[in-house]
Amino acid sequence: MKTEKAVNSPVQTPKKTKASPGQTASNKSRTDKKNNSPKNVAKMKIIPLGGLEEIGKNFTLVECEDDIIIIDCGIKFPDIDMFGIDYVIPDLSYLEDKGHKIRGLFITHGHEDHIGGIPYFLKKFPNVPIYGTKLTIGLITNKLVEHRIDKKTTMHTVSFGQIANVRGFSVEFIPTNHSIADSAMFYIKNKAGSLFFTGDFKIDLTPVDGQIIDLARIGQIGLEGVDLLVSDSTNATRKGYTQSEKTVGESFDVLFTNVKKRIVVATFATSIHRIQQVFDAAKQHRRKVVISGRSMVNVVGVARELKYLKFKDNILLDIKDLPKTHPEQVVLLTTGTQGEPMSALSRMAYGEHRQLSITEKDLVIISASPIPGNEKSVANIISELMKLGADVVYQGAGQVHVSGHGCQEEMKLIHALVKPKYFMPCHGEYHMLRTHAQLAESMGMSKNNIFLMQNGDVLQLDTESAKISGSVPSGIVFIDGTGIGDVGTIVLKDRKRLSQDGLLIIVATLDDHGLISGPDIVSRGFVYMRESEKLLSDAKNLCERVIKMNYFGYSDYSSIKNTIKFELERFLYDRTRRKPLVLPILMSAKSNLAKQIDRMRG
Amino acid sequence: MKTEKAVNSPVQTPKKTKASPGQTASNKSRTDKKNNSPKNVAKMKIIPLGGLEEIGKNFTLVECEDDIIIIDCGIKFPDIDMFGIDYVIPDLSYLEDKGHKIRGLFITHGHEDHIGGIPYFLKKFPNVPIYGTKLTIGLITNKLVEHRIDKKTTMHTVSFGQIANVRGFSVEFIPTNHSIADSAMFYIKNKAGSLFFTGDFKIDLTPVDGQIIDLARIGQIGLEGVDLLVSDSTNATRKGYTQSEKTVGESFDVLFTNVKKRIVVATFATSIHRIQQVFDAAKQHRRKVVISGRSMVNVVGVARELKYLKFKDNILLDIKDLPKTHPEQVVLLTTGTQGEPMSALSRMAYGEHRQLSITEKDLVIISASPIPGNEKSVANIISELMKLGADVVYQGAGQVHVSGHGCQEEMKLIHALVKPKYFMPCHGEYHMLRTHAQLAESMGMSKNNIFLMQNGDVLQLDTESAKISGSVPSGIVFIDGTGIGDVGTIVLKDRKRLSQDGLLIIVATLDDHGLISGPDIVSRGFVYMRESEKLLSDAKNLCERVIKMNYFGYSDYSSIKNTIKFELERFLYDRTRRKPLVLPILMSAKSNLAKQIDRMRG
Repeated sequence: MKTEKAVNSPVQTPKKTKASPGQTASNKSRTDKKNNSPKNVAKMKIIPLGGLEEIGKNFTLVECEDDIIIIDCGIKFPDIDMFGIDYVIPDLSYLEDKGHKIRGLFITHGHEDHIGGIPYFLKKFPNVPIYGTKLTIGLITNKLVEHRIDKKTTMHTVSFGQIANVRGFSVEFIPTNHSIADSAMFYIKNKAGSLFFTGDFKIDLTPVDGQIIDLARIGQIGLEGVDLLVSDSTNATRKGYTQSEKTVGESFDVLFTNVKKRIVVATFATSIHRIQQVFDAAKQHRRKVVISGRSMVNVVGVARELKYLKFKDNILLDIKDLPKTHPEQVVLLTTGTQGEPMSALSRMAYGEHRQLSITEKDLVIISASPIPGNEKSVANIISELMKLGADVVYQGAGQVHVSGHGCQEEMKLIHALVKPKYFMPCHGEYHMLRTHAQLAESMGMSKNNIFLMQNGDVLQLDTESAKISGSVPSGIVFIDGTGIGDVGTIVLKDRKRLSQDGLLIIVATLDDHGLISGPDIVSRGFVYMRESEKLLSDAKNLCERVIKMNYFGYSDYSSIKNTIKFELERFLYDRTRRKPLVLPILMSAKSNLAKQIDRMRG
Repeated sequence: MKTEKAVNSPVQTPKKTKASPGQTASNKSRTDKKNNSPKNVAKMKIIPLGGLEEIGKNFTLVECEDDIIIIDCGIKFPDIDMFGIDYVIPDLSYLEDKGHKIRGLFITHGHEDHIGGIPYFLKKFPNVPIYGTKLTIGLITNKLVEHRIDKKTTMHTVSFGQIANVRGFSVEFIPTNHSIADSAMFYIKNKAGSLFFTGDFKIDLTPVDGQIIDLARIGQIGLEGVDLLVSDSTNATRKGYTQSEKTVGESFDVLFTNVKKRIVVATFATSIHRIQQVFDAAKQHRRKVVISGRSMVNVVGVARELKYLKFKDNILLDIKDLPKTHPEQVVLLTTGTQGEPMSALSRMAYGEHRQLSITEKDLVIISASPIPGNEKSVANIISELMKLGADVVYQGAGQVHVSGHGCQEEMKLIHALVKPKYFMPCHGEYHMLRTHAQLAESMGMSKNNIFLMQNGDVLQLDTESAKISGSVPSGIVFIDGTGIGDVGTIVLKDRKRLSQDGLLIIVATLDDHGLISGPDIVSRGFVYMRESEKLLSDAKNLCERVIKMNYFGYSDYSSIKNTIKFELERFLYDRTRRKPLVLPILMSAKSNLAKQIDRMRG
């Protein structure tokens, strides 16, 4: 991998503009700017290709003349009806012929919905350099190593307060708070104007690592005059403030003080602050920590190496030494808060873990809230853990999780500081985006200056005006195994149908004179074949009749197949009220006569 | 249908025993009872076949000597991994040879998880009479008419305060509150003892229909001495009290007063009280009501006919008169609160409803909370409605729904009144049952007297003692189309696999001399066939090689099929990291020689 140190890279520390003391509104400075550059007619386009009207696959493109930068490159987990799909990424057709214009991929933080798409992106655009803070670059590197493409990629580590300059753009990295360390907001400038991009954020005045969101710098930027604010909407429907991450540490402390059992803490592997607080509580209460689960081991490794996690070697306990250690002296740190079937916690809950088992001597803390869609599987895990006798503390039953996203008051505070001319809510389902837009309106922003967009919409901006000027191709691409985009709606439709009622295959071989083998019926996922002999033999007879009535030597196979399909579907629906996929396969075998003729000709 | 009026049926009004004024504990009366019948050695068995460690398919059996009664007979909606299944009902193998002993099916109330299984039950046990209150019997009748088995079934309507006597049992019907009208609790007595069965309940001191749970009678029963309490655990993890249904009416009133738009209210068709409040608010604010959705029309029809819903004809508006009516004068009452794809609300949200469309002139009230597992689809519906411009009020955004189940304080109140000797929590996931058990413990009940059971466990009870004496066959039966139990785990496993990666079929026809047709490859739900020509032709060549290397005239087909399966699965996984179901079909065609020999023999 070609990593370049910030000092050697196109990254510099900003000359901070000092706002004049009497200057209270941004309008003045904006007017000044306009006066200074009256002939500036460059236009900037902001095009979200992912992250609007959804949670996940964040991907926003900023284009100005011949230069493009991209902010975040995430994946999304599949919806319930995307059968068999591993991940979803944005459709990047728009960039197809624009690879030479992309100056950089700027990543706000190291969550999968912001970095997960990078390996797939780099397959198409291998030369695009990546910019991020230290931990973010560390986690991306980890991912690229897994995909064996780390050696080909140029990575730039940017410190907070520094500006990364690429052709056409400057991007300043501003520290913010979120559920992962080293999260950045971006202040982006180009010929056409300026853009403040929050990424995921909350305002945590007592963060675990002491790195508070740089509200002063944000205020200063606001005074400089920001044209467009693009801001996270995840918690837009929640009133008030999100609590500090430290409140979770306080809950841990109470639990660790009172519990005379082994403690199992499940959380996201990337929740570095949460994990630090588990280590802190363990140290305080003289417990050893066992780390279980591949992603937890990986991320803790990277974060510790980069000094985002601080603990001594002697606090770690090897899993094989567990039997020798008293339960009261152990914390087991693991993943699986979403009830993922293959996670360590899930395997423990269902008694399928090779090395770890849960008993009444365990207190399990589920330190996360269910992602929408996972509520049922999380509830199932909790029930299973309780059946094994464990006590379980989870969202609602104790303060063991706080959100990584700010609520309404925090969103409003950012608006108040940035004082943007225009606003585009991002990152969230439609109702979150809309509520965020309403919040901006309630603060006095004109409805005309707020852009409620969809993925693919183009927001065009210059110093004079902003408008939605059209839209570009956008959509979703499925990742299934090693396939990128080789599964689409037809394949998914088949999978869905197969999942509902299974299938019935009818095979027959024909030569010039008629049936020489079959019809045979094979079914899967439809009925127990052994218990449905009558049904299947009736179906077989029906097919045989259809073939015999329609086949005259060189008949049109596809028409016979359609007739079989039609008749059989009707028959099966009448008998079972089900609609399995009916798949007739007619094979053609040449008659001996035909073969002899062939041979003579040959 | 043979309905019998309560007065002609084995139903009588109880002689109420008057508790002597000084009598405060139940122990005294229980002791008296024991003294009065010291030689009574009859045993009662309580066997839940559904409803424990789950929400749904409630089915509890009470057996005493040669007599059995059944309480409730519900369905459950399928889990996410039960592909294509319509409903789940309990496995009733235990009753297989006991049909002649079943004296009655006693139904607490008319929700699907209590009555939905009745048609399937009656297919096996057509002669069992059904007992319920008026509305419950009305809704069951409606269901049996749909299944065309209403004429064969004996139904007994029981009024509150009456006792239904069947051989071996007396069952007193006590009014309770729940989200459907006419819900009953049962006080059951037989030779071996007594049992208080709550069914679903809450304590609503201002119910919409004025029918308050009969706390006085429950207290009196407690003084008589109850051996076993079986009580609803749905809200066991929620502290405090559930709010009165009337609070929803108050919210309706505020909304109806302030909103100058058409109002759409979505709720469950069986939420009779909720529906009454919609009609009341409509009347108050001079709006007409349009009813949309088959189940809503059905249930409102039954409930109104039986006088559980009260409104005048002139408040109803026909859907075809909507265009002529001002939006501010209309309430649209519909179903679809769970985001069910075929519901009226869902079709409106996705713009697929033939007659109704949603615009910015609508306020949509979703008067229900998502059932666990439906959160995502409900959120999607809300977003779609908002995209159409509608305002949406839902759980969390306004007090437009209250639970039909009591919280901890209500559960404890029932315990305090019933004063049971033994307790079995029912109706709920494991963690709810366990929390309910802990509540009972916290009230001073001995852990030994609390039975945390699973479906199929047998609780054996006599006047002296209670214990879990064993277990009987229990489990689940899938309803898929018209099939009852013809789909099981193997079929579901196939459906799951098909849903993940689709399938690949290899067909070839062989005669004595070898391949005469194929191998051909057909795939569904795997990859786009057109874009994967190379992959599929390589797969085909692989199969051809396997067949040619392994076929020698009369080889063992199944061994060749296994080899094809093994080789092809490996090949496909290497190339795609997917595991489609590989289905080799080898057909045998007799050679002409063999045919001639056959003919000569014939």
